[in-house]
Amino acid sequence: MHLLVTNCNTTAAMTEEIAAGARAAAGPGTTVTGLTPAWGPESAEGWLDSYLSAAAVLDTLRQYEGGCDAVVMAGFGEHGREGARELLGVPVVDITEAAAHLACLIGRRYAVITTLDRTRGQIEDSLHAAGVLANCAAVIGTGLGVLELGDPERTLEAFVQAAERAKEAGAEVLVLGCAGMTGLQRAVGDKLGLPVVDGVAAAVKLAESLVSLGLTTSKAGGYADPLPKRRQWGPPEQ
Amino acid sequence: MHLLVTNCNTTAAMTEEIAAGARAAAGPGTTVTGLTPAWGPESAEGWLDSYLSAAAVLDTLRQYEGGCDAVVMAGFGEHGREGARELLGVPVVDITEAAAHLACLIGRRYAVITTLDRTRGQIEDSLHAAGVLANCAAVIGTGLGVLELGDPERTLEAFVQAAERAKEAGAEVLVLGCAGMTGLQRAVGDKLGLPVVDGVAAAVKLAESLVSLGLTTSKAGGYADPLPKRRQWGPPEQ
Amino acid sequence: MHLLVTNCNTTAAMTEEIAAGARAAAGPGTTVTGLTPAWGPESAEGWLDSYLSAAAVLDTLRQYEGGCDAVVMAGFGEHGREGARELLGVPVVDITEAAAHLACLIGRRYAVITTLDRTRGQIEDSLHAAGVLANCAAVIGTGLGVLELGDPERTLEAFVQAAERAKEAGAEVLVLGCAGMTGLQRAVGDKLGLPVVDGVAAAVKLAESLVSLGLTTSKAGGYADPLPKRRQWGPPEQ
Amino acid sequence: MHLLVTNCNTTAAMTEEIAAGARAAAGPGTTVTGLTPAWGPESAEGWLDSYLSAAAVLDTLRQYEGGCDAVVMAGFGEHGREGARELLGVPVVDITEAAAHLACLIGRRYAVITTLDRTRGQIEDSLHAAGVLANCAAVIGTGLGVLELGDPERTLEAFVQAAERAKEAGAEVLVLGCAGMTGLQRAVGDKLGLPVVDGVAAAVKLAESLVSLGLTTSKAGGYADPLPKRRQWGPPEQ
Amino acid sequence: MHLLVTNCNTTAAMTEEIAAGARAAAGPGTTVTGLTPAWGPESAEGWLDSYLSAAAVLDTLRQYEGGCDAVVMAGFGEHGREGARELLGVPVVDITEAAAHLACLIGRRYAVITTLDRTRGQIEDSLHAAGVLANCAAVIGTGLGVLELGDPERTLEAFVQAAERAKEAGAEVLVLGCAGMTGLQRAVGDKLGLPVVDGVAAAVKLAESLVSLGLTTSKAGGYADPLPKRRQWGPPEQ
Amino acid sequence: MHLLVTNCNTTAAMTEEIAAGARAAAGPGTTVTGLTPAWGPESAEGWLDSYLSAAAVLDTLRQYEGGCDAVVMAGFGEHGREGARELLGVPVVDITEAAAHLACLIGRRYAVITTLDRTRGQIEDSLHAAGVLANCAAVIGTGLGVLELGDPERTLEAFVQAAERAKEAGAEVLVLGCAGMTGLQRAVGDKLGLPVVDGVAAAVKLAESLVSLGLTTSKAGGYADPLPKRRQWGPPEQ
Repeated sequence: MHLLVTNCNTTAAMTEEIAAGARAAAGPGTTVTGLTPAWGPESAEGWLDSYLSAAAVLDTLRQYEGGCDAVVMAGFGEHGREGARELLGVPVVDITEAAAHLACLIGRRYAVITTLDRTRGQIEDSLHAAGVLANCAAVIGTGLGVLELGDPERTLEAFVQAAERAKEAGAEVLVLGCAGMTGLQRAVGDKLGLPVVDGVAAAVKLAESLVSLGLTTSKAGGYADPLPKRRQWGPPEQ
Repeated sequence: MHLLVTNCNTTAAMTEEIAAGARAAAGPGTTVTGLTPAWGPESAEGWLDSYLSAAAVLDTLRQYEGGCDAVVMAGFGEHGREGARELLGVPVVDITEAAAHLACLIGRRYAVITTLDRTRGQIEDSLHAAGVLANCAAVIGTGLGVLELGDPERTLEAFVQAAERAKEAGAEVLVLGCAGMTGLQRAVGDKLGLPVVDGVAAAVKLAESLVSLGLTTSKAGGYADPLPKRRQWGPPEQ
Repeated sequence: MHLLVTNCNTTAAMTEEIAAGARAAAGPGTTVTGLTPAWGPESAEGWLDSYLSAAAVLDTLRQYEGGCDAVVMAGFGEHGREGARELLGVPVVDITEAAAHLACLIGRRYAVITTLDRTRGQIEDSLHAAGVLANCAAVIGTGLGVLELGDPERTLEAFVQAAERAKEAGAEVLVLGCAGMTGLQRAVGDKLGLPVVDGVAAAVKLAESLVSLGLTTSKAGGYADPLPKRRQWGPPEQ
Repeated sequence: MHLLVTNCNTTAAMTEEIAAGARAAAGPGTTVTGLTPAWGPESAEGWLDSYLSAAAVLDTLRQYEGGCDAVVMAGFGEHGREGARELLGVPVVDITEAAAHLACLIGRRYAVITTLDRTRGQIEDSLHAAGVLANCAAVIGTGLGVLELGDPERTLEAFVQAAERAKEAGAEVLVLGCAGMTGLQRAVGDKLGLPVVDGVAAAVKLAESLVSLGLTTSKAGGYADPLPKRRQWGPPEQ
Repeated sequence: MHLLVTNCNTTAAMTEEIAAGARAAAGPGTTVTGLTPAWGPESAEGWLDSYLSAAAVLDTLRQYEGGCDAVVMAGFGEHGREGARELLGVPVVDITEAAAHLACLIGRRYAVITTLDRTRGQIEDSLHAAGVLANCAAVIGTGLGVLELGDPERTLEAFVQAAERAKEAGAEVLVLGCAGMTGLQRAVGDKLGLPVVDGVAAAVKLAESLVSLGLTTSKAGGYADPLPKRRQWGPPEQ
Repeated sequence: MHLLVTNCNTTAAMTEEIAAGARAAAGPGTTVTGLTPAWGPESAEGWLDSYLSAAAVLDTLRQYEGGCDAVVMAGFGEHGREGARELLGVPVVDITEAAAHLACLIGRRYAVITTLDRTRGQIEDSLHAAGVLANCAAVIGTGLGVLELGDPERTLEAFVQAAERAKEAGAEVLVLGCAGMTGLQRAVGDKLGLPVVDGVAAAVKLAESLVSLGLTTSKAGGYADPLPKRRQWGPPEQ
């Protein structure tokens, strides 16, 4: 099985990290290709970035010629998911929803710990549209930017503080709300005695699950193939 | 007062129609500039189109040098609204939410009549995020594509049929769910004895209202200015 | 255009203040008449006052002979709105809903800061019925009574404290939850760096918007004209 | 125990009918006094009537000198309930909520069958505020006015038709949505094989329950006693 | 009238206490029989206990030969209620829902104070299914186990602390969330100035109400009589 | 990996069918053991059956000595899930929630097609508690009992009719709402052009996913290990 994992930003190092996380989660017969969009923001932190990212990722997907059995979209709370479901015949799983789906199975309430507070609204909307917001006790920001996650100690400390607030809000499970946080999973969990779900790993397992059951996106409604028409992807060359 | 009205697609004729509708609604001291994105889909009918449109409209707005007092985004159910609120210091009003806001004031329940069924999900999500979905009795598709709206008789007939279903669902007010439907407003309303709200006109009045009250987007939360970073708008030239 | 602005209580000085606020917000061609109900409570602070106020305001409206193009009902969270929509052919806008409608356009979540805690329930119910409760992060009382708002320093201080709690609850926009608070708008906003919406001003703009678009209350459902019947407005004379 | 049962309109014959229904439901030690408001509408069918009724009923209650152990408010979907809770030290039970409370105990979903369609909104809002809307499958109008309920055959037929729609909507229990419908209870129930709850009877039992348990309205929040102030109940004499 | 009151656990002393509470609440013509399940947990504190309890209580009910006019199920937040509604022709009232129904009548928001935090989820689910969760401000645990309630001073103190949190969450009425807490009602209420509802007493009054009105469980839907089939109640003897 | 799959009823043939379905879905390294409860109902169709089944399944699980890596509970809409999460250290996945989780990934709205109408309430409650009810467009009964599913033609016809109603309600994906329906999946899907999710297969993949990611039930809240106490599983021997 071949999974395509799309980063939501243009930072190739982050694509690598994400792909490594995906490979660690993937089953024995699964190969993973990380895809960095050719354009878009260097990191996605807010609505503007997210919409730019969505178009760039969709453009990258539509031009990808390698074929795949499923796509994992690795932008936490980022847009584009439903467009990819229209565009492709293979299943599409977004890491936001994926983490929430698994979190619901192992606790009555979960919380998302993310980077900047400003991204909370997008995450809430994404979980709502995916149908898994009901058992979310809180979406909590650490105040750290995506590109600041490099300092592991500071990141861990900020996470643990946010996780304490999550527990007070009733969360029994934590979701790491950023694709680049994969490394934190074990450290945070050990410190807090709570299971911690990483979206990339969750999405890989869900994508494998759909593929192995022969399930793919319904084309009988909102995710029907895009209508043929003229579309200009990016500004005209001058 | 100068309003910028952004079409969500690249069809300049539709921009003209929208701008004409906006001018008809605008107050005496208001000038209206219609803006056609330089790239994107020729019509927005589905998630893929919507995400492509969002990026193209945001790119167009960020490069617009004319200045304005407020922006009206004329894509019914299309994405991008929150990104424009981050990007700009002036108020941003989307025609989807605008129509719903006014509809709530003149009836207990409203319904949206739109083009293709496939766009219903986007409209529901857009109304939900805007906080005005609660009194929406139904979002109903006519089965007509955006570019088929040219035939007025067929369009009117399809609308009246959809409107009957809306009344059965409890709607007391109708919202025209497409920027290019402005002409239908009076015809449908007369035929059905229900008020019909056009999103472009509604958004113009709400934008004028905000400007005249000195209100603009809060920058104290999710709509803070975008963080400075590298962003590549469109594919690199080859 | 002629707007009728109804105070919800019998305190004429408050009617004047409200009418002044309405005039400050109104467009150049709009005249404003303030209307003090001939009976009712001297201030509306609770359910009993609110129901008494509703009947008195409706009685005043039904006897008003001056004609008007729209009605603004200036009681925050007070009852009567839907009765006025039945009674009249012109649009009716209540300051509670109006403030919320505009607040939704400039922030993802808003909060209402009101007078006494006891009025919170009415405000929540009014926003719910109007279809705009979804994005309300909190309704917060300052502990000040309507007639205590005269002391500007104490009022400002109480508001700023309440506003801090609103921000913690996620509000990005504040709504002044009392008709007599209009003066506070700028002071609070400056102090907090948040946009502050005044209901009277918001309602004036929304009423003007509806009138200029030729929209008025749907008579095709719950707001149909009242049935003709015997109604005794107030106790029989003895 | 002495129960005061307030009619919501000025039609004394209807007060008698309601009081008779209340007496039939009351326990052996309970006496029932029917109270007709001295002013208000001759029947309550819509928002205007409802707000007028609310003030008139509250005025009647505040002037009632007979004392009582609890009050039953017999207007289905009419306003005033929360005002009476502020005004009085004894428990107040409204027939709308009462019927819903008992209906929830004997079926998973209930429906309300009422008179005119135009009153549906008020009923929904009343059930929502009372906290018992969640299991309501539908509120359905028969198209009959309050004062048309005199023709038993026509009324029964209209009810049975509405009840069929209620069953299709998932209702397992019916609520008679009008104080004057008490006689229908057995007839409709027999015809449909569904339990039918009458609000007057339900409210009598709930009022008796509260009194016998020593429970009454909490004064620690929104239902605290009304603040002392000038209130003019009805127009000044001329 | 004969009420059967089922304890949810096998501790006969608790059955006695519950039956005493029920008798104190019952009307003059009502006799109360307490029923201890022949098997199950000695106290119900969590999901496992609750499901075990549900089967044991249903087994006990189905084998009970004494006849009765209604059943009160005295396990706060415990399962089984809907099964008893299928099984029996007489009304079934659970103390969880009963307390909430009465609490809604005497305050705008109520809170449940229960024993261990771990039972909060069950209580929320039970109130949700019963249709009365909407006005619940909070379900709060005291940290005391069911069998620790014997120490009255410690229990009272723990309750008063929890009640303070309930008031901050907006509760105007408290519900005692455990069948064995009946004694606390007056003590907590006096200390806090809030009405306190005991579920056993509430359920007795609601059961009496249904019986005296001739209302019983609808058999026209989900609570139809169980289908005849082989059912093995408990492990086969060896 | 060793999965334990518990049937909810005592019909061993159905356990075999379920285990076969589970094995067909399982990955190469997974072994599946089907477990028939030693007591309980021969089929679960309603609340009484469901509560009896829950206790029997929990009793069977607690006595199972074989060890396992995860448990799949194969009763659609049946109770017990949360009790198993308390009881066990390994992940527990119920087929109801599992089907919904996967369905949400491949369509905007899903519907459940189940056996008898009477089980709809349980399924709705189970999906609600699991946090995945939001995108469920409908739960529809075919009118067939669990043990009538043996006639494939009649079953297929009933399903296709129910599925048509599901599509009208907006469903884009179908869920087979009964453990014994596994065989229908392909037939129904082919006939309708909609993806069809089988709960047993879905639960197997989700259980494998959790195990392979090292995730298991959070013990930091409501699913903590059961408290040690006396519990009598089934009636005392006589």
